[in-house]
Amino acid sequence: MRVIGIDPGLRYLGWGVLEISGNRLSHVANGVCASGDGSLAERLLRLHQQLSDVFTRFAPDMAAVEQTFVNKDGVATLKLGQARGIAMLVPAQFGLEVGEYAPNKVKKTVVGVGHADKAQVMHMVKVQLPGVDLAGPDAADALAIAICHAHHARAPQVTAARQVRA
Amino acid sequence: MRVIGIDPGLRYLGWGVLEISGNRLSHVANGVCASGDGSLAERLLRLHQQLSDVFTRFAPDMAAVEQTFVNKDGVATLKLGQARGIAMLVPAQFGLEVGEYAPNKVKKTVVGVGHADKAQVMHMVKVQLPGVDLAGPDAADALAIAICHAHHARAPQVTAARQVRA
Repeated sequence: MRVIGIDPGLRYLGWGVLEISGNRLSHVANGVCASGDGSLAERLLRLHQQLSDVFTRFAPDMAAVEQTFVNKDGVATLKLGQARGIAMLVPAQFGLEVGEYAPNKVKKTVVGVGHADKAQVMHMVKVQLPGVDLAGPDAADALAIAICHAHHARAPQVTAARQVRA
Repeated sequence: MRVIGIDPGLRYLGWGVLEISGNRLSHVANGVCASGDGSLAERLLRLHQQLSDVFTRFAPDMAAVEQTFVNKDGVATLKLGQARGIAMLVPAQFGLEVGEYAPNKVKKTVVGVGHADKAQVMHMVKVQLPGVDLAGPDAADALAIAICHAHHARAPQVTAARQVRA
């Protein structure tokens, strides 16, 4: 079972793919889609094309996107929202439901505390995925989201199995 | 030459298509894409599918999207941003550049004043496109955006023609 995590951003959109085998997680690939220069429409088109290529190439079975932190900077929120629209659309176009996790929940799951900084997240992603070569902080965040989804998406199955045994 | 105007929204996304023949504008079609119920990803997928169908059916040559008014409600801005990402992506996927106009500029062009209300916009859209049957206020706004783009996209050609004559 493959899971992709996506960290949306208009300039750089991070992605990371994991394989879940029983209780074991292993790294498949990670990277960053870059929107480059040009008009907003061109940049969103580039993100859509690159992310669609990732889905075609790695064929994930599950997807999760980081929930956006809404602050008082409306212009930044709008930019991020537009990129996040693409990050939500692509999995849906490939027939996948999309899990959504708040940044604090991702950090809590991966690092153990909700207020971890970027360096701690990168460290713990490397610990949990030995030998991983990270394409950058956005890709590390995306892998952290995938790890978080792997944990939480497995939980209901475990619960169901326990109920059957009980 | 056909122009489509798009008024983005997560629940209802208005669209309107005009034909420009010389100085004359005529109505082609207008409508509303509805995202319906379900997860955010499903709703964005529905908007993308419906808007893509409109582009396939009416084959516009030019596109314009309303600029989003950013306010202090970050959650609303994020929702609108995600829908706006789809509204910008679809024209780009059909190879079109996307004009962007602030709501005040649209109203100023169509009604004559930047602070016009929805009823005034609907009235002036009906005046400029005789016999039009409006699918609702979002579709009327979309037609107003198309009218605005028709005016401003023609302006450079007029200027060029004048310069040739001068």
